[in-house]
Amino acid sequence: MSTRHLVSIDDLSLAQIRELFVFARDFAADLRAHAHLCRGMISASLFFEPSTRTRLSFESAMLRLGGGVITAADIRTMSSSKGESLADTIRVVGGGYSDVIVLRHSSEGAARLASQYSPVPVINAGDGSHEHPTQTLCDLYNLWLERGEIEGLDIVLSGDLRYSRTIHSFAYALARFGANVICCPQPGFEMPDYVLQRLREEFGVEPQRADVSRLGDIASQSDALYLTPQKPHQLSLFTDTRGRDIERVDALYMTRPQTERHPDGGRGLDNYLQIGKRQLSAEPLKQAVVMHPLPRRDELSEDLDSDPRSIYFKQAARGVPIRMAILAYLTGAISLKAEQPARELQAHPVSLGQNPCPNATCISRTEARHVMPRYRLASRHPLRAHCAYCSHELQFQLVGSSDTREFFPRDSIELRKLRPESLVFFSTAAEALTLGFSPAAAGAPTT
Amino acid sequence: MSTRHLVSIDDLSLAQIRELFVFARDFAADLRAHAHLCRGMISASLFFEPSTRTRLSFESAMLRLGGGVITAADIRTMSSSKGESLADTIRVVGGGYSDVIVLRHSSEGAARLASQYSPVPVINAGDGSHEHPTQTLCDLYNLWLERGEIEGLDIVLSGDLRYSRTIHSFAYALARFGANVICCPQPGFEMPDYVLQRLREEFGVEPQRADVSRLGDIASQSDALYLTPQKPHQLSLFTDTRGRDIERVDALYMTRPQTERHPDGGRGLDNYLQIGKRQLSAEPLKQAVVMHPLPRRDELSEDLDSDPRSIYFKQAARGVPIRMAILAYLTGAISLKAEQPARELQAHPVSLGQNPCPNATCISRTEARHVMPRYRLASRHPLRAHCAYCSHELQFQLVGSSDTREFFPRDSIELRKLRPESLVFFSTAAEALTLGFSPAAAGAPTT
Amino acid sequence: MSTRHLVSIDDLSLAQIRELFVFARDFAADLRAHAHLCRGMISASLFFEPSTRTRLSFESAMLRLGGGVITAADIRTMSSSKGESLADTIRVVGGGYSDVIVLRHSSEGAARLASQYSPVPVINAGDGSHEHPTQTLCDLYNLWLERGEIEGLDIVLSGDLRYSRTIHSFAYALARFGANVICCPQPGFEMPDYVLQRLREEFGVEPQRADVSRLGDIASQSDALYLTPQKPHQLSLFTDTRGRDIERVDALYMTRPQTERHPDGGRGLDNYLQIGKRQLSAEPLKQAVVMHPLPRRDELSEDLDSDPRSIYFKQAARGVPIRMAILAYLTGAISLKAEQPARELQAHPVSLGQNPCPNATCISRTEARHVMPRYRLASRHPLRAHCAYCSHELQFQLVGSSDTREFFPRDSIELRKLRPESLVFFSTAAEALTLGFSPAAAGAPTT
Repeated sequence: MSTRHLVSIDDLSLAQIRELFVFARDFAADLRAHAHLCRGMISASLFFEPSTRTRLSFESAMLRLGGGVITAADIRTMSSSKGESLADTIRVVGGGYSDVIVLRHSSEGAARLASQYSPVPVINAGDGSHEHPTQTLCDLYNLWLERGEIEGLDIVLSGDLRYSRTIHSFAYALARFGANVICCPQPGFEMPDYVLQRLREEFGVEPQRADVSRLGDIASQSDALYLTPQKPHQLSLFTDTRGRDIERVDALYMTRPQTERHPDGGRGLDNYLQIGKRQLSAEPLKQAVVMHPLPRRDELSEDLDSDPRSIYFKQAARGVPIRMAILAYLTGAISLKAEQPARELQAHPVSLGQNPCPNATCISRTEARHVMPRYRLASRHPLRAHCAYCSHELQFQLVGSSDTREFFPRDSIELRKLRPESLVFFSTAAEALTLGFSPAAAGAPTT
Repeated sequence: MSTRHLVSIDDLSLAQIRELFVFARDFAADLRAHAHLCRGMISASLFFEPSTRTRLSFESAMLRLGGGVITAADIRTMSSSKGESLADTIRVVGGGYSDVIVLRHSSEGAARLASQYSPVPVINAGDGSHEHPTQTLCDLYNLWLERGEIEGLDIVLSGDLRYSRTIHSFAYALARFGANVICCPQPGFEMPDYVLQRLREEFGVEPQRADVSRLGDIASQSDALYLTPQKPHQLSLFTDTRGRDIERVDALYMTRPQTERHPDGGRGLDNYLQIGKRQLSAEPLKQAVVMHPLPRRDELSEDLDSDPRSIYFKQAARGVPIRMAILAYLTGAISLKAEQPARELQAHPVSLGQNPCPNATCISRTEARHVMPRYRLASRHPLRAHCAYCSHELQFQLVGSSDTREFFPRDSIELRKLRPESLVFFSTAAEALTLGFSPAAAGAPTT
Repeated sequence: MSTRHLVSIDDLSLAQIRELFVFARDFAADLRAHAHLCRGMISASLFFEPSTRTRLSFESAMLRLGGGVITAADIRTMSSSKGESLADTIRVVGGGYSDVIVLRHSSEGAARLASQYSPVPVINAGDGSHEHPTQTLCDLYNLWLERGEIEGLDIVLSGDLRYSRTIHSFAYALARFGANVICCPQPGFEMPDYVLQRLREEFGVEPQRADVSRLGDIASQSDALYLTPQKPHQLSLFTDTRGRDIERVDALYMTRPQTERHPDGGRGLDNYLQIGKRQLSAEPLKQAVVMHPLPRRDELSEDLDSDPRSIYFKQAARGVPIRMAILAYLTGAISLKAEQPARELQAHPVSLGQNPCPNATCISRTEARHVMPRYRLASRHPLRAHCAYCSHELQFQLVGSSDTREFFPRDSIELRKLRPESLVFFSTAAEALTLGFSPAAAGAPTT
């Protein structure tokens, strides 16, 4: 069997995730009773940027499984300063040093790249603003534990919905599990269009206005949205004039302002929403659990800490058993009965021309010397594609074929006939001509 | 049973400490024979400032007990940079990540605060210039091992007695155990008055002049003091005119200049005392063991290293078994027969007004956003109180009652009638008036 | 038995090294099957400069042996900032904290110094640009595994042969094992004279010109040398006019430019040799394995990675079992049948005068406050000597005797009569006179 990795939560099927939840719950019943599972194994924490909390959680999980840990808590001082590629680092650390690698990196797509070279399983512990699958699994695991299921739940997401990686990943995962999302953003920090677009394309989610008047302060200033992956006939149950009425919420997931990613560095956030006992007294929130990925600042009032609905500290603690389950699964210490998800979309190399990924912090750009750009097709006509590393949508105007050295407008129907491996992406005709490509005769690519 | 912590050495009774010494001696007999005691447990090293030696000693102790270790060696890069409170960090790391927390922090009182929130035992591995109880226990353990007892010993403390936290904690502990202290300070670096005051108030120690002429160089330039917690009738045994004669010393405890805390950064210390073979040839020192908390600079000559009286390297090595005993006790791996000390003085909140703690690096100030000031009463009349975190004496002129909104002079007899929970401390009447308090009618508080 | 250390590869006999190889191969067969060997032991990683790869390799090895690890990954923040000597640090960490110390330091000779004070075995994990014996052992182990023996092999060393510590140590070790070395340096980065001199003095190696025309690009621009420790009668087999013909190479060992040590910071290296499939197609390289100590930059083309001759990633991975063997041997977990090498040359103190070691980063200079200079005699007439810490040749013009307070010219035959312990080294007569020495009467030192 080929080496398993956890780069994205989509590397696991829903059935596998549910099995992992059961294992995690069993582990949590007695954290010290499972030290035989990974006895003799070693986990390597390779953190190219520090994230103490995430690192300690993984290391605790491995120790609780009886394994050992080797740690590079901040690799800015490692050989990379001598110019080593991430691929080489991974091949060395994965070759005899360790049995599983926990990778944190500031570049989007780093974990995907690492998984292509690692002889041992790679776990993505955060790649820039891209994915952090064990955080998402931990969030889902909490819902599953608290509510018994995830499908059909109504979850309010509140705060900075624009810049929070956690929130975006959580929204995709909730849609995948069939839960509904009510977006109550801080004004000016609404869910980005590209997230809504992916929710639509992958899960058929059509955003609807939500009437959150019963939620009180939490949503008073914002344009709330209701996102449901349920079938359309269910949507017709509510009138469109007022927006979907929110009567009962299962969980309120609050997030801090991601000031480090704000264009203005977080200025002007003095009026950021603060949730306290008063906000939670609204009728639809009476039974809602309050979640937060932590660390918090002021967006969760300390008067909530003793409220039985506040589960954010439990939520963090549950990161250990869920990571134990993941480590045990990837190292082969436990087996899952469910099958892995269907093979994801194939990634094709872009062997010519400029890197069409527009994301400056994508690993295909930060390690441009070592990494060949790759992409996945999203649609054939018009041609749309995503970077296979960071998932950003490619930006281009013209597409060429390295087979025929012809190039086409992006919306040419002829593009459907080209081999994906042969595609080259251009911003301008001049760029294509410089590389020796010629404009295709209209309607007749010579493939 | 509630969670045990080791924030201050006063969290342990003398009988408990003696039991821990016996355990430590047994552990030291074969450091590798006790790996079953904490099997499956995890210790978290949370170091908010680096202290490699202390950290390694604790981590070695936990590994020798068979436990695992997760480490944050320098948390200036942790979530605290995102504004997280110490309380939140502790709740997360203490919630499933670990079974015991070893905390080092630059703010006085940090470990006390942590113990209020931690679900697992907290060990204070140094909180600013406040306490470092395992260092003190290690020092006492060395005396106990070398001399068989501590009560009645005569211990010379020499060097920088003003700025050394180690020295102050050691002096209190020696008084508590009934040992006598001879202070031979570097001139200008005498034991501070507040230390002498606490020795007097808690242990009845009245400083007396000491005649250290027989000690030779060690004390030639300084005004030596003799501090004994023994009963007064014993004090009358020596004449007061010459000062207590020092005939025989059991241990000489030397300390380096704490230049990092000197107001002038340690300038003008060229003539700092250096102890060598010559200094140790004085008759009363013939049997004295030489101790030092390390690291040393030049205050201990290297020609002493081979002298059998020099135990400072042994002293450091013994930090491992004593920390093993502490970890094993706090995690419940071993039990002590002796009872815990009587409940310490109650800490009362200061819910109104400014923080009366004068210490700028107290955790109640460095984390002012999250921490409510608390105090302990030292005396009712005149009202004296200490910060419950950093132990500094509170500074105030007026005291109000949040029950009646009246305020009183600090020495008012009426203060004895107020509920401690209601006290508010003011520097000026203006401050009190601003908060809506009025001067009390003389002699008649309306409680 | 006295404590064993691994400061230099010369601390092990050839027969011991071969035994360690056999242990390493057995360990590698199942890395997880040997966790009983160091159960209960602790290794301390003391890294005074960061070297993540080396550290992780050692820590992985100790964990695979069932031991524990305590780590100081970058001790610039340790007590040394309070002025502690390396000797004191070692005595503390070696006293109860750990059962073996893995030391990395930026000063040449640091590990030798440490071994003089440590109660537990010290392993040199790199002391400046001096030695890194486990790297050398790993390189040799790879040859032994790949070729079945080392004696008689023909090894090409290529790239920056001037500034690479790895290359120099490897060359000495190959000569000691009876292997031949073909130097194919980057032009301007030839093997230094002092390395060739040591090869001559210790192993009788006389450099000969090598005809590397069959090797193709690898050596086209450089003056190649053939270094063989074989007996002279074998040398006569080839004609001297063309240089030794290189027909078949067993291994090609490539090294990166050590730009951090280049006087000009590595400028002008745009044409640094790059080895790729084309370069490896030369007939004599058909069977050669390709080695590299990693990290690489561009000197090994990525198109080599899939070539079966490329073993550089395996080479790195094999660092774990060879370090397991070393740790197990030094801690006494395994025994070797072969004897230790004959006692190395005695080191004599230089108790007077200036430190004659010319190396500014030698530990005898960087810790001048604590370290007495020591030297080893290389020859009596003319007097030549090396620093006992960093191995640099001492620089001096005059030599005095602390017994007679006379001094002599360096080439005086009279120096043969002096006790080595009494030698004092001077640059000038003025220096000697200042210290109270007088010129010796010619021919008659009064010893």
